[in-house]
Amino acid sequence: MGMYDWSPSLQYLLHCGVFAGPILSASERFADFVKQIYEMKVFGCFALTELSHGTNTKGIRTTATFDPSTQEFIIHTPDFEAAKFWVGNMGKHATHAVVYAQLYTPDGQCHGLHSFIVQIRDTKSLLPVPGVMVGDIGMKLGQNGLDNGFAMFHSVRIPKENLLNMAGDVTPEGRYSSSVKDAKERFSAALGSLSTGRIFITAISITNLKLALSIAIRFSAARRQFGPTDDEEIPVLEYQMQQWRLLPYLAATYALDYFCKSLAGNFVEFYAGLLTKQRSQRQVDLGREIHALCAASKPLVSWTAQQAVQECREACGGHGYLAMNRLGDIRNDSDPNCTYEGENNVLLQQTSNYLMSWMNCIRDKAPFESPLGTIKVLQDYHHILGWKFTANSVEDCMDSSVPLAAYKWLVCYLLKESDLKLRKEKQSGRSDFEAKNNCQVYYCRSLAIAFIEQTALQRYHDYTHDPSIPSTLQPVLKKLSALYGLWSLSKHLAVLYQGGYASGEQAGKFIQNAILELCYRLKDDAVALVDVFAPPDFILNSPIAKANGELYKNMWAEILQGSKTLNRPSWWAELCINKPVIGRLRSKL
Amino acid sequence: MGMYDWSPSLQYLLHCGVFAGPILSASERFADFVKQIYEMKVFGCFALTELSHGTNTKGIRTTATFDPSTQEFIIHTPDFEAAKFWVGNMGKHATHAVVYAQLYTPDGQCHGLHSFIVQIRDTKSLLPVPGVMVGDIGMKLGQNGLDNGFAMFHSVRIPKENLLNMAGDVTPEGRYSSSVKDAKERFSAALGSLSTGRIFITAISITNLKLALSIAIRFSAARRQFGPTDDEEIPVLEYQMQQWRLLPYLAATYALDYFCKSLAGNFVEFYAGLLTKQRSQRQVDLGREIHALCAASKPLVSWTAQQAVQECREACGGHGYLAMNRLGDIRNDSDPNCTYEGENNVLLQQTSNYLMSWMNCIRDKAPFESPLGTIKVLQDYHHILGWKFTANSVEDCMDSSVPLAAYKWLVCYLLKESDLKLRKEKQSGRSDFEAKNNCQVYYCRSLAIAFIEQTALQRYHDYTHDPSIPSTLQPVLKKLSALYGLWSLSKHLAVLYQGGYASGEQAGKFIQNAILELCYRLKDDAVALVDVFAPPDFILNSPIAKANGELYKNMWAEILQGSKTLNRPSWWAELCINKPVIGRLRSKL
Repeated sequence: MGMYDWSPSLQYLLHCGVFAGPILSASERFADFVKQIYEMKVFGCFALTELSHGTNTKGIRTTATFDPSTQEFIIHTPDFEAAKFWVGNMGKHATHAVVYAQLYTPDGQCHGLHSFIVQIRDTKSLLPVPGVMVGDIGMKLGQNGLDNGFAMFHSVRIPKENLLNMAGDVTPEGRYSSSVKDAKERFSAALGSLSTGRIFITAISITNLKLALSIAIRFSAARRQFGPTDDEEIPVLEYQMQQWRLLPYLAATYALDYFCKSLAGNFVEFYAGLLTKQRSQRQVDLGREIHALCAASKPLVSWTAQQAVQECREACGGHGYLAMNRLGDIRNDSDPNCTYEGENNVLLQQTSNYLMSWMNCIRDKAPFESPLGTIKVLQDYHHILGWKFTANSVEDCMDSSVPLAAYKWLVCYLLKESDLKLRKEKQSGRSDFEAKNNCQVYYCRSLAIAFIEQTALQRYHDYTHDPSIPSTLQPVLKKLSALYGLWSLSKHLAVLYQGGYASGEQAGKFIQNAILELCYRLKDDAVALVDVFAPPDFILNSPIAKANGELYKNMWAEILQGSKTLNRPSWWAELCINKPVIGRLRSKL
Repeated sequence: MGMYDWSPSLQYLLHCGVFAGPILSASERFADFVKQIYEMKVFGCFALTELSHGTNTKGIRTTATFDPSTQEFIIHTPDFEAAKFWVGNMGKHATHAVVYAQLYTPDGQCHGLHSFIVQIRDTKSLLPVPGVMVGDIGMKLGQNGLDNGFAMFHSVRIPKENLLNMAGDVTPEGRYSSSVKDAKERFSAALGSLSTGRIFITAISITNLKLALSIAIRFSAARRQFGPTDDEEIPVLEYQMQQWRLLPYLAATYALDYFCKSLAGNFVEFYAGLLTKQRSQRQVDLGREIHALCAASKPLVSWTAQQAVQECREACGGHGYLAMNRLGDIRNDSDPNCTYEGENNVLLQQTSNYLMSWMNCIRDKAPFESPLGTIKVLQDYHHILGWKFTANSVEDCMDSSVPLAAYKWLVCYLLKESDLKLRKEKQSGRSDFEAKNNCQVYYCRSLAIAFIEQTALQRYHDYTHDPSIPSTLQPVLKKLSALYGLWSLSKHLAVLYQGGYASGEQAGKFIQNAILELCYRLKDDAVALVDVFAPPDFILNSPIAKANGELYKNMWAEILQGSKTLNRPSWWAELCINKPVIGRLRSKL
């Protein structure tokens, strides 16, 4: 459904997943309401961000003050900068919102961010309820089928029961009580549902990769330009340059698709534990590990998709710039994945924080492990730091074990460097806040990216090298794994040299030549590889990418269907016979 | 005017420049027609590309056959794949086209690509003239105010005089004559006018850079998020990460703006020579040098702009994704600059070919020079190849002379490597065509990019270090020069290590730390630096970037002006009271 158009899928997901999710996991008392949600008697949205606060959710300023005299909460927007903003489904159709607000007890104490069910529109007339100003924030760069909205609350009263009491509750007398003692932990619990969103965004980005690659590779196989002689033109996919522009993204699509599916599997295990209220140490550790993985996989995959779509657009030349061929819509719809549910650069800090948290164990040579084993690479930290690049030929580099080994070194090296940098910043008298901010560029950010690439590659490497893979498929899958690994790694080549893992002219050349050789060996399979995941023509909806390969016929059929293609413009007379006279707008006085 | 909206500017430019240009330089016999062009009695377009041929202009298949019995050319489109396509101004309003076609004499001989003035629409009714099918190609990703069109010619007869006889002509009897003997040279002469387009596109891209940076930097100075304490939030521009994302692009805007203006000056000299029919060796050499510079500056600047707009969009978070803030339009309008007037990757080959052409002189240690001196770096080739990175501290790297020296080495090294690679490909038995194609990735492409970056940096370095620069301005301009140089260079860091110019951990760290330090030192001037080139608010037309810095008030003012912001949607009843019954579309039979 998303391949056809993301907007209805997102509306559905926001209603049944993001809105219903926290209500489902809150308490039994919402059972009736949940029934109404799934019967589509009410429509919901998830109102967290405000006009002036997106990334810094802690800074949210909407208030929910308990009034014991009526057993109600009063939801209030202090000023227009605290208006709920960007809320999907809120613009036109949601009747209810899960509103995040600072909870105040009658004694004036603030207990931090909590969520409340607030009705915003009448379910029969769809008009705003009294005290709520709600509207649409207007056109976006893409996803305009989704109604993003804003809302301001003027002392709107809601029943006490509408508090989603996952982490805290209020007694009838107005005393606050919480099962989670620590305020910071309570905050995390309140935002726990964001990981679901990140998993979904990762899957959405993968889907966009599939769409864009299907279009660009089919086009490149059908489009001919130049050739060895003046009479013969060859498909542009035959050019090394075109292969190099597209095939690494094809490999990335396969590798990341597998990785994201495996990550979704891990998430299901974790979520089942949440729903069944497991309180084991493993569940806590799993939560931390999955949080760290999602916080980096969402940036990795959304950026990869965004760059891929742009490269596909350019690789299709002018025809890629025609709206009907859809790469513009894919780019515009894909773009916000880099921003929502955590701005990519900010989100990566969660992953590097997780990795840095193991430094004490590493320094003390104390044993440590994680449920999913993704930090296995750090257990060998001291040993791995001594590794070197050892391949002696291009052929040596044709397996993903080569980039994988380099990635393991890279993760350890960047962790060491990030740790050193942070300590240096602190030693020079900087506050924790400042020190951390000054360790992101070239250090923690690179660390988080290298770590998630290594994790994705490790999983796809293991998968493609498993003996259970049919022997007819294994060669091509291994090539995809190697190409993805080497191509990703090549963006870190400077660090490999800088840190002494690689040295001399040959190392870089082996990697580069192996990338080109793998592209060459994969190009004849490229069309088959996109046919695997391309949806039917009707859904792909791109004339240059129909499965029949008749790109020009398909384009003409589309162009000539345009209602105004051959029309004379409405303003023809002004251009030809009633031309404006120069100076006629000058004052006649 | 372009800052407000590119479409009318482009329509004007295509009419008065790209269409009128080749007519102007053809011969005196078009004087009357040129008068009509500038009086807007006729409207023109430049019809080169066809549906199936864009980059490979030589492969164009429209024919122009001379008929001596009527002294006419017959313009003909052999099939729909040879339809003229993508032609700006052709979609709705052009009355005439400069049509490129293969010239055939009555003896059946083809004399290659020539251009002809062909009327396509009636000037009074704007209806197509007989034999011409002309229409609009439909929506594009951007620039939809420009009417790109297609045309097919069914044996359309035009007077013999409509041949634009720059390079060749036909006698009344039907014999072909040309002042340019060589067919290849004739082809180049026929396409000479494309350099003008590349100069304009470079300037357009610079303008887009200015728009995007104005928006993102003003937003970043006004938007606050997080802070050292819970009570105090700081502008996001205070974060090192945000500085690193935006300020190098600000430096690039300054450096490339200066470079492009200087290049336009060179071009004016060359064009004056063309118009006055200078035939000196200097004029020929200047033509080649300028062609090589334009063929790389257009890719460099259009890509820089495209990447910058994307980074600006992301750096403005969700608000950057709101259409009203304009980064989407800028991205979409900027995007085709990477494609038209020469696909960037293909175009770069012209520059590397030019550079490679000096290898014989270099090998023979024969003297050589170019009119503008941009190949000066190659004159010292053997010496420069022995250079090493010598900076001993971050402070040492704070001047653009450091990246400039590295760039000189880089250009020589990549030239050496490209030359070696080409010879190796040929030695292994590959045809010239194949050998050249296999030398692009990592070799010739990198060479062309490094060369044009070095040239741009050299000019901006010289400019910022000139004693005539006011001493109050010099410090900030020198910082911009150094930041642009180091940041651009950092993308080639792996090659610097690979080729032995840099070694050890420190070299890379000095460069990285210098980039961060320069960002820090420039951040307080950043708003002033965009105020220099930002247009008035009305033209910038982005609520988050108004000069008053009141981003939230400006956004509200815009949102509440939306006609449907607070409206109930037209389909409210279907959602609330007349809900569709599941299964009602099922057959009742």
